[in-house]
Parts: sequence; structure tokens; C-alpha cells
Amino acid sequence: MKKIGVAILGLGVVGGGTYRILTEHREFYRKTQNVDIEVTSVLETSRSRAESLAVPPEKIAVNIAEVVCNPDVNIVVECIGGISAAKEYVLAALNAGKSVVTSNKELYAKFSHELERAAKRHNAGLFFEASCVGGVPIIRTLLDGLQGNKISSLMGIINGTTNYILTKMTNEGMSYEAALAEAKKLGYAEADPTSDVEGFDAAYKLSILASLAFHTKVPFTNVFREGITNLSKEDVEDGKQLGYTLKLLAIGKRTDAGIEVRVHPTFVRKDHPLASVADAFNAVFVEGDAVGEVMLYGRGAGSLPTGSAIVSDIIYAATHSDVKYSTFKNDAEAEKDVNFADDFMSAYYLRLSVSDESGVLAKIASVFGKNHISIVEMIQREKEGGKASIVLVTHETHELAIKNAVEKINSTEIATVESVLRVVS
Amino acid sequence: MKKIGVAILGLGVVGGGTYRILTEHREFYRKTQNVDIEVTSVLETSRSRAESLAVPPEKIAVNIAEVVCNPDVNIVVECIGGISAAKEYVLAALNAGKSVVTSNKELYAKFSHELERAAKRHNAGLFFEASCVGGVPIIRTLLDGLQGNKISSLMGIINGTTNYILTKMTNEGMSYEAALAEAKKLGYAEADPTSDVEGFDAAYKLSILASLAFHTKVPFTNVFREGITNLSKEDVEDGKQLGYTLKLLAIGKRTDAGIEVRVHPTFVRKDHPLASVADAFNAVFVEGDAVGEVMLYGRGAGSLPTGSAIVSDIIYAATHSDVKYSTFKNDAEAEKDVNFADDFMSAYYLRLSVSDESGVLAKIASVFGKNHISIVEMIQREKEGGKASIVLVTHETHELAIKNAVEKINSTEIATVESVLRVVS
Repeated sequence: MKKIGVAILGLGVVGGGTYRILTEHREFYRKTQNVDIEVTSVLETSRSRAESLAVPPEKIAVNIAEVVCNPDVNIVVECIGGISAAKEYVLAALNAGKSVVTSNKELYAKFSHELERAAKRHNAGLFFEASCVGGVPIIRTLLDGLQGNKISSLMGIINGTTNYILTKMTNEGMSYEAALAEAKKLGYAEADPTSDVEGFDAAYKLSILASLAFHTKVPFTNVFREGITNLSKEDVEDGKQLGYTLKLLAIGKRTDAGIEVRVHPTFVRKDHPLASVADAFNAVFVEGDAVGEVMLYGRGAGSLPTGSAIVSDIIYAATHSDVKYSTFKNDAEAEKDVNFADDFMSAYYLRLSVSDESGVLAKIASVFGKNHISIVEMIQREKEGGKASIVLVTHETHELAIKNAVEKINSTEIATVESVLRVVS
Repeated sequence: MKKIGVAILGLGVVGGGTYRILTEHREFYRKTQNVDIEVTSVLETSRSRAESLAVPPEKIAVNIAEVVCNPDVNIVVECIGGISAAKEYVLAALNAGKSVVTSNKELYAKFSHELERAAKRHNAGLFFEASCVGGVPIIRTLLDGLQGNKISSLMGIINGTTNYILTKMTNEGMSYEAALAEAKKLGYAEADPTSDVEGFDAAYKLSILASLAFHTKVPFTNVFREGITNLSKEDVEDGKQLGYTLKLLAIGKRTDAGIEVRVHPTFVRKDHPLASVADAFNAVFVEGDAVGEVMLYGRGAGSLPTGSAIVSDIIYAATHSDVKYSTFKNDAEAEKDVNFADDFMSAYYLRLSVSDESGVLAKIASVFGKNHISIVEMIQREKEGGKASIVLVTHETHELAIKNAVEKINSTEIATVESVLRVVS
């Protein structure tokens, strides 16, 4: 039976979960996977973390050199997070010919070129299932399950924190601030929630997933990004009335105009499979030319679900000797001259505050008309102080057309656009 | 670049779809998968089928010997269906050292032992993603995505025909007969629909999926099976009122009592992710000890979705040289002394027709009490002719307890149990 030595860098939430799964399941993997996986080394400066997992002291390495020089280490698992130490250690491992399994979406999204080059040079594996959507094996599915398809789009709820907040706002009428506070209390949001609520986390993941789906490097910096911090209870309620659920969607599409990648709050029709993905659950919806629509649903994060993804990569690395670094199976042919769309098509939800006087609606309609925007439905409501509120949903139109129309309406004195949200039907 | 020659046996719906995908995507796979896949041979007796796909005449083989003796054939794709010819041809291919990709669930469910032995003896690959749930890459996910988990249960809507019929009965109030007729008209049901509506098709697939999930051979004959032919509009409606949607579920569980595998109509709570899987869509819901709940959703059948699964296996076989026959990675250790449960726990829905006289309810309650069955909710309705109808849902209890209670109630003269359906909440 093949014996595989694993080193885990960092025993935080994910590294600790991985350690637990590997040690508790060792006999199970011997039986079912025909491989004996032993954690032979850990790098963790917090003695209490290592002790709480009962890591034998002789397995605790002092520094990364000790790990990468250890001949009993075949696979290095990086669960440190962030860039500086993580990048240095991953490169050290790859340069020593060790295969690397990482859960670090930021590292992978920003530096995959460099990591892949090192992996290739040293014939090492580089695996990153755990970097995107914890318990949902979407990367393996794109690489080995749907690889026969030309993928035209993927759409996902790929950040648990924001989905928890939006679920609370939708189901319990909470404000953004109250829902964020509760997410923090439950450990779903970090003390500084910027990366989640501003969409950075989702954008890192989308850059990785879109690269795989479209067989070309999709730089993180090309991802259009809008967070959830400005969403109001009013929008959530209006959307519900119209039959929509508000989600932070990551969308990747391949159209004739090029590749578009964007992360933004989106109204999803109530009967769409993504609409019922609630709380900290995540899901990715893929459309391929042969397979049609496929959705994968599961826990987006957490110690054991993300640990499950890491262990899946470890076993895969241990049992598939001819799969090495793995973003592209054919680097030379991965498309280089790819366009990124700077405009895109979507339906839109708009909420306007208007003066309650005759002729206003005609003026607004005229602005939409000039920008070739047509309306699917509209609700008008009286407000106090001679103001009315108009909520409307458009047919598919250009983002740039909406921007023009909003600017034009805001430049009048009769109406203000309070919210603009994209709609997927 | 690696060159792979593929032979397709049978150019029906699935074989034809596979042929189309492979020929149309050849350049795409060269670019993205670094492999040149050519259909070098087809075995199809219908000249018109071959012609409609524009298969070059020189590629049409006369018999299986010609296919398996062809040195340009590396992988044989079996899309014939049924047992006799399919089994003979698959064995011939394996015995010639060709890897086999099959969409044949009946063949695989009934004869996987024999096929695996042949594959092992000749160091050939044996792949069967397309045998279960067409466009949903559930087999690859169990083997390579969730393989780090001890799986406690899987539950699936894995037959498109019955799901289409039940969706029509639920959403449009159709009778079983009317819905079946429409399914036939649309090509979702075959002229003889027995295999689908009596649950054989789902049972074949469940035997394959449960074998993978529980790492032991789960014989088809161990699957408890109940079809949808006796379902009434009344049950569908009563269930809806109680907040349930009726689905044909395939359920595999590993409990202390052993492995249980069963296919039967089941009421699923409306907010369960499986409840909204409608029409010909399929989904499989898996629970693993690390990953928690995961669901895969997609098209269950059809020319291109099933073709997508076959092509996925072909590319996998072509690019993973150390993966061969693949039900178990460790045959010697696959558990042999496994128990199969002959009883199981479930919640139940019962519809009773009762005499509208005093004391009846007390007598029924007493039967339930004696069998340790407790009731969650109950609706009583007046019917004509001195009869009333009672609909109730129980807490989790033993199937055997329900059987005893039903027998006891039916032996009285005051009540008849009209329907018994299992419930998943």
C-alpha cells in the first residue's frame, strides 16, 4: 500500500479540521482508498492549537525549511491564509518537489501563474479545491466531470457570510447592520468583514472558477465587483413583492463580446434553483453546451467541509500520479488573446423617488425610451411630503444604457434613482 | 499530444449524442484537454442512423471482432443497452485490453463483478458515469470529490420519467394515467414504461451509487422497490395541504443495523432542496461526516447530457493512466460482511377511510399506540355515505410497526387504510 506523508501549515479552523479528518480517518482511507496517509509534520506557532489537537510534539516543525527538507513529507497543505508567509512557504514546498494543496483563494487568484510555473518546473502537483466554496466539489467537477462541455456561463452564491446576511434581511426583515452583527456573533463574519461584504472573497473565487470554466486565466482585477453594504430593507421587500430573492451572485459568462466576470447583489427569480440557497449554504450553477444546466449545492465554508475538500485533493494527488499542476491541461494552448467585456447585458431593478406631480412619469419613460430600455413591470407608491416611489424591472439591456439613463434622471429635479440592482430571471 | 481512438457501439439517442459531441469538440479537446480524441470505429446496424450522423462509411464496423481487433481503438463506448449483446461486447473489449465506458445501468448493476474481474485481468479501465443520472457527475463526485467522507446517506430523484409524471400530478392536478400519457407523447416515457414507473431503473442506479458511497457491493436484488403506479390525485393533494411534495426517491443509508437501500414514492417537505427538483431534472443529496450536506442537480437523461457524462469518462480515461477499473480502489478491503437492513425507520403518511361513528378514532389511536407509533398531525374530513377520511403523518417509526398497524386496522370493520406513503422531513 502506498504511503503518503502530509505536512499541514497552520492549524487554524481549516488546518485543524484537516488534521482531525486525516487522523480520524486514516484506517478508513487505508481500506477504501488503498493509501496510507499520515500527517508527518505540522507547522504551527501556537502551542495551544497543536496541543488541543493532540499533535505529537515530535511532529511539530520549527520552520518551513524543516518541513520541505523532510523526506517523509510528500504533500504540503497550506492553511495559513493571506499572502506573504503563505506564498513563501508554498513556493518553498513546490521548489522542493512537494505537491501542494491549498485553501488560499487570495493566494491562488493573485499568484497562480507563479505557483504553476514552480509546480511545473519541479513536476509537483498543485491542488486548490478548498480555495472555492468549501464543501462543494466544484473545481473537481469542472476539471473532471464537465470537461467535455463548452461552458457558456457559471453563476454562484459563493460567499457564506453575505448569503447569511441576505437570508436574514429577506426572511426576518433585518437591516444590513443588524444582520451583520448577528453574523459576527455566530462567527460567520470576521471582525473586519470587508473582504466578504465588499465582494473581494467572491471575486477571488470567481477568478479561479472562471479560469477553469473558460480555459483561460481570468485575472482577479478583471472582476467587476459591488458589495452588499448599501442594500436597504426597502429593496429587499420590494424585490420580494415582485417575486425575487436578493443574493450576492458571482457571474461568469462567455459571450461574443468576450468574457464577463462580475460579483454584485442580484435579484433572482423565486423559482430559480439559486433562490432557495439559504443561510451559509453556497451553490454554483453551470451551463454547458452538452450537459445543459447543472447545480452543485453545499456548505461554503467551515472547518470540516473545507477540510473535506483538502482531504479530497490529498487523496487525489496520492492516487493520480499523472495529474500535476492542474489549472490548465494544455498551457501552451490556453487562450491568450481573450477579450474581457466592459459592458454586459442584464435585466435591472430600479427604485426611484419622484415628485408627485403630473408629467413626471412621461419624462422618466422618455429617458428610458431614448436609451432603448423597456420596462417589464412597475409599481408606484405614494410617500409622504408630495413624493412618490416607483419600483420597476426592465427587460435585458446594456449596463451602459442603464448608467446613462440613471445619470440623466438624476440630473433632472423631478426624480432621484435610489437603487439600481441587477436581475437574473 | 496523446491520440486516443474511440469506438462507439450503438448510435441511438446516447451513442448518437456522444458521436456528435466528440466530432464537434475534437479541436476543443485538443486545446483544452491536451488530447486528440478521434472516433475511429462505430458499430451500428442501422444504416440510416449512421448516415444521419454523417459517419464515414469506412468507420462502420461489421461486427464486434472488427472493433476489438482494431489497434486504433483504445476506448470502447457501449451505448447498446440491455444485457445480452451489451455484455458480450463489453467483455470482448475488456478482454482485448480496451478500456470501456458504458451508460448501461442494468448491465453494470447486475454484472459489475464480472466486468470488473475482466477489466482487472487485462489492466483495462471501466467507467460508468453515464449509467446514473445523465448530466449529474455524481459518480466522479463520489469517487474523487467526496472520497474523504464517511457517507451516512444519499437520497436522490434519479429517474426523469417518474419525476416528470409526479410534477404534472402535483402542479397540474393530473391523474397518473394522464401524466403518463403526456410523458409518452413527449418521449419522456417509453411505450412500455415498466422499468421507470415500477422503480427498476432507479433501483439499478441506486445499487451502483450505494456501492460507491458505502464502499461495498450493494446488489440490485437488495433494493426495496415500490413504483408510482398506485398513486392517487387525492394523496398528492393531501400531501400538498400538509406541506409535502411527492417524489420517487432512491434512498441509501448506512445505520448501525446495516445498509438500507430503497426506492419508493416519498413525501418530501416543501423546503427540502429535493422538493423543488421538477420535471425531467434529477438530483442527488449526499450527507458525509466532514462535508455535511451536498446536492448535485441537473438533467437526468437525454442525448447530450448523457453524452456529456460519457465524454467526461473518455477524457478521464485518456488523461489518468493509473486509474483503471474503478468501483473500489481497494478490492481486497471492500467490506464483505455487510448487513442489509430488513427493517428501516421513516415517518409515514396514511390515508384512512373510516366509518363516521363515535369511538372509531379511539380504536385507531389505540392500534397506533400499541405499535409505538405517534402522530405528528392529522386532518379529518367528512365524506359521503356515512364515511369520513382521515389523513395523518407519523413521527419516525419502524416500517414493520406501520405494517403491523395497517394490517390490524384493515382487519377491523371500522376503517380501511387507503394509502401508506413514506415521508422525509
